[in-house]
Amino acid sequence: MTSLNRLGLSFIKSSRLLKRKYLFQSQMMSLSSQVTSFKLVCNKFGDPKEVIELQDESLCMPQNDEVLVKVVMAPVNPADINMIQGVYPVKLSPVPGAVPGNEGVGVVTHVGGDVTQLKPGDRVVPSTPALGMWRTHIILKAHQLTKVRDDLEFVDLAGITSNPCTAYRLLKDFVALSEGDVVIQNGANGAAGQNVIQLCKAWRLRSVNVVRDRPDFEQLREYLMQLGATHVITEEQLRKWSLDVAKPKLALNCVGGKNALEVLRRLDQGGTMVTYGGMSREPVTIPTSSFIFKDITLKGFWMTRWSNDNTCSEARKQMLDDLMCFMHDGRLKAPNHKLVSIRDFRDALANTMNPQGFAGCKYIFDMRLEEQSC
Amino acid sequence: MTSLNRLGLSFIKSSRLLKRKYLFQSQMMSLSSQVTSFKLVCNKFGDPKEVIELQDESLCMPQNDEVLVKVVMAPVNPADINMIQGVYPVKLSPVPGAVPGNEGVGVVTHVGGDVTQLKPGDRVVPSTPALGMWRTHIILKAHQLTKVRDDLEFVDLAGITSNPCTAYRLLKDFVALSEGDVVIQNGANGAAGQNVIQLCKAWRLRSVNVVRDRPDFEQLREYLMQLGATHVITEEQLRKWSLDVAKPKLALNCVGGKNALEVLRRLDQGGTMVTYGGMSREPVTIPTSSFIFKDITLKGFWMTRWSNDNTCSEARKQMLDDLMCFMHDGRLKAPNHKLVSIRDFRDALANTMNPQGFAGCKYIFDMRLEEQSC
Repeated sequence: MTSLNRLGLSFIKSSRLLKRKYLFQSQMMSLSSQVTSFKLVCNKFGDPKEVIELQDESLCMPQNDEVLVKVVMAPVNPADINMIQGVYPVKLSPVPGAVPGNEGVGVVTHVGGDVTQLKPGDRVVPSTPALGMWRTHIILKAHQLTKVRDDLEFVDLAGITSNPCTAYRLLKDFVALSEGDVVIQNGANGAAGQNVIQLCKAWRLRSVNVVRDRPDFEQLREYLMQLGATHVITEEQLRKWSLDVAKPKLALNCVGGKNALEVLRRLDQGGTMVTYGGMSREPVTIPTSSFIFKDITLKGFWMTRWSNDNTCSEARKQMLDDLMCFMHDGRLKAPNHKLVSIRDFRDALANTMNPQGFAGCKYIFDMRLEEQSC
Repeated sequence: MTSLNRLGLSFIKSSRLLKRKYLFQSQMMSLSSQVTSFKLVCNKFGDPKEVIELQDESLCMPQNDEVLVKVVMAPVNPADINMIQGVYPVKLSPVPGAVPGNEGVGVVTHVGGDVTQLKPGDRVVPSTPALGMWRTHIILKAHQLTKVRDDLEFVDLAGITSNPCTAYRLLKDFVALSEGDVVIQNGANGAAGQNVIQLCKAWRLRSVNVVRDRPDFEQLREYLMQLGATHVITEEQLRKWSLDVAKPKLALNCVGGKNALEVLRRLDQGGTMVTYGGMSREPVTIPTSSFIFKDITLKGFWMTRWSNDNTCSEARKQMLDDLMCFMHDGRLKAPNHKLVSIRDFRDALANTMNPQGFAGCKYIFDMRLEEQSC
């Protein structure tokens, strides 16, 4: 982010002092040409609980094509953790100094003189990942922001650019699906998987959803059926496969290993399996005959690449419009979540590093808690 | 083949008697409304050397849309062996009674009254596999035959529908390649691999060709370089990869296992690997990161399916025209081969079941040897 270069940085760690500065900023913002932002900074790659620090910075008013955004919410996602650990293909930069946070939602407070497409009061989400949303205020170029609807919950919008978009593209970009077609997915209780279930329901596709066997399977099954799943089965049931359903044209794999192979085996002739995760940490093993005689196609999907390739594309606009429409209608719900203060970042990081699966929930930084706590 | 139903079959095993019948047929064919054909018949699925038998049959003159073809040459391919063993996805039918032989070339001798597109003297190849070319004469529907050029060697035409077509489609159908682009393949010394090398040369593509390490590697390397290979390397050299060449956009895999994984690792971002064989009998194992972050696509190719889907397509016509043009120019050469009598079928089957690789050669039934031996 080029705008970081011209920021005056100060490193004040005292929580009380930070609170006072935030209060001062809230009172003085309209009188001053500067605003104090609080942000989580990555000092070096490593254990997120060790290397992340809360800092403040003074932001000048936006110039030219810049926009000042007051961030409202920013989720903590597994990809954020991997970026802090330094193990993600996209590197945080510069370290020390970079702010993590691939997604979030905010409200425009000030715009530079050349900005015509946004105005104060507009709700916005970042147009690409890795802009660093774990802060209370951010200055970005106008083209780095996408205006979103103002009649939706912030908590829906905060996470719209990762999992709902991933599910949307997985169902749209690989196989031409028609009403009644069957999609099979593993890791169906994951964040993307839950969105896949809801989008299948909205588009009248049938979904076969595979989850690990577990003590609370019936409870999970009930939950996913309520989201719109056609079938919810365990890996064991997948191997036996007694479902009275057409063969799937599309398989979505975020697990890998034997599970992925079993899912692949259920695919229809000429079907496609898209891999977008590898939770088992095992590779995908494919019999030669699946390629030659069953004509299976295997592809991969990475939302980050798609987003970077489609910052301003019509496809992205259409996708966000569709997703927001589904959110407005109640057909696409945010996952279980907990709103936390940016000051409680260690809890939030620890939670994301030790996912509780279905029993757990997603932590979302709610920047409004700063104001309330002052 | 429906035309089999109305054939009068006799089961005469004596080689001398068969010879006399063939001689008689050659002399009497123009006077008679029947012709005697000698054919290899599969009596049951199993060891080809045990279950194949030479028989004769009387063929009536072709009626309506039928064509009588005097077969000139028919190769023995690994797929023929697998079909006799009963382990191929396409089954010989009916067994007992079916004639193997997926490809070959012949000359039209008589046509039925409704046939306009073929005439006696035309050279033809089968339009689809599995028509049973291991016989001296065959009656087919006109649409099951494709007319080919008469200024090419029979030995080139005999094998045109399998390996040259496979290589052509592998290079045409999966990645849009431009002059100078790099293709990597394993099993490069195989029958399809040698065609890939020659077509790459003809289309000004660069080919990186991986073969197993072997005592006669330098000799093999020399041979493949003469065919037009850009680089010929062993699996060990593939792992170390010190070639000064752009990353391949397309990988062709007929080996599987670790070899396929190493080939995949050399692919360019967004590249495609097409599997058309699995000589190692090991599956293809793909790291999740190759799908997600490297955006690799894996597909399969089976010439049989393509042929069945494209019996009369413009794409097939264009392909055969191109391949015959390359054969005429000397840019596409038949592999090392040995012409054998259909009576020596046990030798031919044994040879194909125990491939000698580069040191070996392909056995092709030359039906003209019957006439000469009479």
